[in-house]
Amino acid sequence: MEEGLKVLGAIEESHGGIRFARDVMDWNCSYYLQHGKMMPENGLHILKDYDLILLGAIGAPEVPDHVSVWELILPIRRAFQQYVNLRPVKLLKGLESPLRYKDHADLDFVVVRENTEGEYSNMGGRMHQGTPYEMAVQNNVFTRYGTERILKYAYALAEKRSKKSVTAATKSNGINHSMPFWDEIVKEVSQEYPGIQTNLYHIDALAAYFITRPETFDVVVASNLFGDILTDLGAAIVGGLGLAPSANINPERKYPSMFEPIHGSAPDIASKGIANPIAQVWSLAMMMDHLDLPELSTVIMNAIENVLQDGEVLTPDLGGTATTKELGDEIVRHIYQTT
Amino acid sequence: MEEGLKVLGAIEESHGGIRFARDVMDWNCSYYLQHGKMMPENGLHILKDYDLILLGAIGAPEVPDHVSVWELILPIRRAFQQYVNLRPVKLLKGLESPLRYKDHADLDFVVVRENTEGEYSNMGGRMHQGTPYEMAVQNNVFTRYGTERILKYAYALAEKRSKKSVTAATKSNGINHSMPFWDEIVKEVSQEYPGIQTNLYHIDALAAYFITRPETFDVVVASNLFGDILTDLGAAIVGGLGLAPSANINPERKYPSMFEPIHGSAPDIASKGIANPIAQVWSLAMMMDHLDLPELSTVIMNAIENVLQDGEVLTPDLGGTATTKELGDEIVRHIYQTT
Ligand SMILES: CC(C)[C@H](C(=O)O)[C@@H](O)C(=O)O
Ligand SMILES: CC(C)[C@H](C(=O)O)[C@@H](O)C(=O)O
Repeated sequence: MEEGLKVLGAIEESHGGIRFARDVMDWNCSYYLQHGKMMPENGLHILKDYDLILLGAIGAPEVPDHVSVWELILPIRRAFQQYVNLRPVKLLKGLESPLRYKDHADLDFVVVRENTEGEYSNMGGRMHQGTPYEMAVQNNVFTRYGTERILKYAYALAEKRSKKSVTAATKSNGINHSMPFWDEIVKEVSQEYPGIQTNLYHIDALAAYFITRPETFDVVVASNLFGDILTDLGAAIVGGLGLAPSANINPERKYPSMFEPIHGSAPDIASKGIANPIAQVWSLAMMMDHLDLPELSTVIMNAIENVLQDGEVLTPDLGGTATTKELGDEIVRHIYQTT
Repeated sequence: MEEGLKVLGAIEESHGGIRFARDVMDWNCSYYLQHGKMMPENGLHILKDYDLILLGAIGAPEVPDHVSVWELILPIRRAFQQYVNLRPVKLLKGLESPLRYKDHADLDFVVVRENTEGEYSNMGGRMHQGTPYEMAVQNNVFTRYGTERILKYAYALAEKRSKKSVTAATKSNGINHSMPFWDEIVKEVSQEYPGIQTNLYHIDALAAYFITRPETFDVVVASNLFGDILTDLGAAIVGGLGLAPSANINPERKYPSMFEPIHGSAPDIASKGIANPIAQVWSLAMMMDHLDLPELSTVIMNAIENVLQDGEVLTPDLGGTATTKELGDEIVRHIYQTT
C-alpha cells in the first residue's frame, strides 16, 4: 500500500496538478487484534462518502480468514453494490508467460466476475452436530436482478472492445438449478447484443481453455466463485499473483468503488519487505480508468512495463533481488521520466 | 469405445489367458432419441450385477446435457456409491507439457474427487418466475459421512505413494458454511495419518499452483465441483482432454466401479473418426489396476507411451493425421509386441 500511495503522489506531482484528497484507515488484522473487529461499527457509513477505496492485502495468520474477509472485504463489496469485479488477464511487456507457446498477443482479455451473490452467500448452516449424520448445507443464490446486471455489464464492455465476444462460464450439466437459470439469462441478454458473439462453456472446460487457447478470449463473464477461480488461474498464466489487480465497481457510481490486488497478504513473506507492489500499483491504474483518466492510467502502466523490460529492479517473485520499496521507487522514477 | 474394446481383446489374447465376459449396452443419446430415456427403467438393476462398467462419451448435440448426465452418468455414480473419482494428472512419455518449464518429473500426481454429493446436488429450485424478482437457489450438501470417506481414501492412497502428502482444496474464506465444515474434517482425518503432510489451499490459489508448481503435488483431494475443475485443468497441463482417463470407484466393491474418459463426446469432431482414443484406453488400464492386475495396466500404458514416443501415428489433437482406428490399431500392435 505504501508503494501504491507513493505512486499516487508521483502522479499528482508530475502530471498536471490533479489532486486526490485522501485518508488512510488502519482497518486491518492488527486493528482487529486490538479492537475485536475489522473496522469501526460505523465503518461502512464512514466509507460511504468517499468516491474511491484503495484496499491493501489485509489478512494475517493470527486472524482467521472468515473474520478478515467476512467483516471487511465482503461487506464493502456488498454494501456498496460493487457487483462488478473486473480483472484483466494481460501479459505485460517484459514478462514471459509460463505457457510455452503463448505470447503477449495471446494473453490479453478481461474477466468480469459477479461480486455480490452466487456461491458466496451466507445462507446455510449445519445439522446433527456431534453425530455421524452431521451435515452442512450452503445455498448458491442467483437472482435474475444480480445475473442480468453482471451480464449486461459484460456485453456492454465487449461492445467497446475489438473482438466482440463474450465467453460465459457455466456448469449446468452438473449443477441443475442455479446454472441452467444462469444459462437462460445469458441467452436472453445475448439477444440484446446481436453484434456480440457468445460462447457458453462449462467451467471445467473453460479452465482448460485458459491454458490451451487463451487467445480466443476477450470478455469472460462468470459467477462469483467461477470468476474467483478463473482470475487466479488467469494471474498464473500471465506471470503470477504478485501482479494481478482488480476493480470492485459500482457502475452506477452511487457508492464508492474499490481497487485491490487479487493476492492476499502472503504470510510467508509478510514484513520482509519483498512483496511485489505491482498488483497494488496496477490497481491504482484501474482506479484512473474508472475516473475516466486513461492518460494517467497509461502513465502508470508504461512505468510498470518499463521497469519490467529493464529487468534490473525486480522483486524475488520475478526472479530479482529488489525490495518492495526499491521496485516502488523504480516505478516512480519512470513516472517522473515521462513528464 | 471400439478402440477400448479392441485393446481389451488384445490383452485377453496376448497376455496369459485372462478373459472378460462382457455385454455392450447401447445406452446413449441415440437410445434416448428412440426411447425417450437414456437407459431402460431397470437399467441400474441390470448394471448392478456386473463387476465393472466401461463408459464411453455419451453426449450428443440433440440431447440436452442435463438429460444425458442426470439420467445416466450421475445416477450410476450415486446408485453404486462410486464416491471416489480418481483422475491421474501425469505427463506421458512422448508428450510435452504446455507449461514452459515443466517436464515429466514435475507432472505426476493424482486427483481424488468426491463423486456423490457436494455442489452437485439436485436440491434447490426457483421462485418468482416471470418477475424481475425471479431467483434460483442450489444447495451444496456436504455430509460428514461423505466427506470423511473421501478424505480417508485420499490419505490411505497417499500412504501408499512416496511423497506422503495430501493437498485439499477448500474455499472457506468465501463459502462460509460448507467449506469450513470440510476444513474441520480435513483436520480431523489428517490427525489419523500423522505420517502424511497436509496442505489446505483455497481453490483459486490451488488452480494457480497447478500452473506454477505442479511438482509439489502428490494426492490432491477435492469436492465434486472443485475436483471437476481441477481435473480438466490437470488434463490441460499434461497434453489435453483427449488423453485424460478416470475411474469412478466404489472402494468397498459392493457395487460395480465405472471407468470413463474425462472428455465429452466432442460434437465438433463426432463421427469424423478422428477422436483420440487414448483417454478411453487409459481408462481401461485404470480398470486393470482396480482389478489388482497392475502388470496388465503396465502393458497397456507402455503401449500407449511407445506409440506417443514413436510419434508417427497420432490423431489431430496431438498434431498428427491418424484416425481413431489407426491409433487404436497402433496401440494393439505394441501390445502384441510386448507379449
Ligand atoms: C458431464 C459432467 C456432469 C461431468 C462432471 O462434471 O462430473 C464431467 O465434466 C466429468 O468431469 O465427468
Ligand atoms: C479473500 C477472498 C474471499 C477473495 C474472494 O474469493 O473473493 C479473494 O480470493 C479474491 O479473489 O478477491
